[in-house]
Amino acid sequence: MQPPAALARYGRQIEDELQSLLDRADPPELYRMLRYHLGWEDAQGQPAESAGKRLRPVLCLLACEAAGGNPQRALPAAVAVELVHNFSLIHDDVQDQDRLRRGRETVWAVWGQGQAINAGDALLALAHVSLAGLAERGVAPESVIEVSRVQNERTLEMVEGQVMDISFEERLDVRLDAYLTMISRKTGALFDASLALGAIAGGAPAATVAALGRCGRQLGIAFQVRDDMLGVWGAEARTGKPVAADIRRRKKTLPIVYAFENAGGDDHGRLETVYRGQEPSADDVSFVLQLLESLGARAHCEAEAEAHRRAALAELDAAGVDAVGADEAREVAEFVLRRDY
Amino acid sequence: MQPPAALARYGRQIEDELQSLLDRADPPELYRMLRYHLGWEDAQGQPAESAGKRLRPVLCLLACEAAGGNPQRALPAAVAVELVHNFSLIHDDVQDQDRLRRGRETVWAVWGQGQAINAGDALLALAHVSLAGLAERGVAPESVIEVSRVQNERTLEMVEGQVMDISFEERLDVRLDAYLTMISRKTGALFDASLALGAIAGGAPAATVAALGRCGRQLGIAFQVRDDMLGVWGAEARTGKPVAADIRRRKKTLPIVYAFENAGGDDHGRLETVYRGQEPSADDVSFVLQLLESLGARAHCEAEAEAHRRAALAELDAAGVDAVGADEAREVAEFVLRRDY
Repeated sequence: MQPPAALARYGRQIEDELQSLLDRADPPELYRMLRYHLGWEDAQGQPAESAGKRLRPVLCLLACEAAGGNPQRALPAAVAVELVHNFSLIHDDVQDQDRLRRGRETVWAVWGQGQAINAGDALLALAHVSLAGLAERGVAPESVIEVSRVQNERTLEMVEGQVMDISFEERLDVRLDAYLTMISRKTGALFDASLALGAIAGGAPAATVAALGRCGRQLGIAFQVRDDMLGVWGAEARTGKPVAADIRRRKKTLPIVYAFENAGGDDHGRLETVYRGQEPSADDVSFVLQLLESLGARAHCEAEAEAHRRAALAELDAAGVDAVGADEAREVAEFVLRRDY
Repeated sequence: MQPPAALARYGRQIEDELQSLLDRADPPELYRMLRYHLGWEDAQGQPAESAGKRLRPVLCLLACEAAGGNPQRALPAAVAVELVHNFSLIHDDVQDQDRLRRGRETVWAVWGQGQAINAGDALLALAHVSLAGLAERGVAPESVIEVSRVQNERTLEMVEGQVMDISFEERLDVRLDAYLTMISRKTGALFDASLALGAIAGGAPAATVAALGRCGRQLGIAFQVRDDMLGVWGAEARTGKPVAADIRRRKKTLPIVYAFENAGGDDHGRLETVYRGQEPSADDVSFVLQLLESLGARAHCEAEAEAHRRAALAELDAAGVDAVGADEAREVAEFVLRRDY
């Protein structure tokens, strides 16, 4: 499916704002890593075009617009959210020991773990530095403080989700509700922040900010469920990851948590053996894929994602915001659910 | 030497503020790591007393007092600076693969690298969350925004210094001036922030904030030089590290950078061999210690630290601030230079 129109409409402004914030040279090792990770350069420092989807900053600008504000004002917040997201990706790749992201080597695979940890830390610091731009664009001091507060609390919540995610890796008894709580934090919190921050910068009243935040959170959960599905059933050419990548890496994402909760006797036993072992064999991978098929795991995930998308749209309706921004936000929600990359 | 009186006077308030900020329970894995790292619990979750010196938050409160403000108001900023410092320690231990800090296992040695990265990330997020307390204590919105701005820029600078530090590890040609630039960022920037934040919260005019910030930076450089000296010549019983620890770990701290810049022919050659190799032998360590002795490296470091302490005191005098806070700040500066742990 095509990316939503808002991504094209806002893409250039977001990229420009990111680039002007990152227009720093010293120490060169640091800013080279960051330009590489953000997709503007290859590992040799030559120009490249390999940026992410920038979904979170687009949602931030749409929320600002939906709240009746000028999206220009929300740009520093939009960029901050994108940088928090990228900080988490860099650290996540170190934690998961993933060597590839979007078909390119990860930062730690090129520059080592120590410098990759620094690169992530720098992006988190830069996200906060970006917020200083809000006051310069005429956002009222009280709103600037509120933007900071919400961003900081959601960032902490995201890290809390990350801690839960890693602690789940050692367990085979994670329940579906615990898994959904974890992704609400790990992914939902930052989508929540995206919309809430845009709404605050756009001058929305507290109730609208809260409703748009909840809309973002539901959208984030739907996004993560879709991500989990792509990790099992995604096409390599679209995702940049091998087929069944998450099974090969024994990641306990939603389809697997569902299978653990629903598989009977022998199947459950073999599933445990696979997920207690090291490298799963080709046979193991086929077994897991067939088990997911027979249990209807894919339909369950689709229903879960759809439920959260619907909850997101209900919050959007309840927020009672401007039609233009809201219509485009609906289109983004559609994309989150149907995307194949 | 005895710790300065201000550490005892403010210690309890700082610890209480830290504990109330960290009075969180979910997810338990995260907050257990943080209470352990901050010295309040052992690895089994039993009460312990093993906190750091809390030098940075004390300096923040002294700067607030020196600026004529009520130090209570600066507490959220003082705590924020301490948390930024501790975030950097947790990540630094992962990067350096250090298994011991203050005689206890480091966070990654107990909970693994992935969770230690999360623990550091959480402390950085919590540092920012803490700043929300400034507005609640009556600090004006414009000052809250300025505190955030300075803290974020200094945190970024600290990470930049950390990147330089790691990139220096692969080089044998680091010059003294480059080394001093690196520690000005890695350590000086956060001491700068400590005093500047306290001054802003205390309502000081911009020129005073800047002067106290420069005072802090010089003090931070002196602190790091002293740290480098303790890493080579410190007593194990006081520092919690083995004698000549930094030579055994082949860390290129100030005494070694000085030796590389001043050693002649054969000595220089052997020094290169030692620092290109893996584990230095007992003979190698003796050679390095004797070389440092013959080159007068210790006297050079002492003079360097003293020069920065004097520069710090000159900035303090120039700031023209209240005598009580300033006198105690002088005492802290004395401690920074003479401490043996």
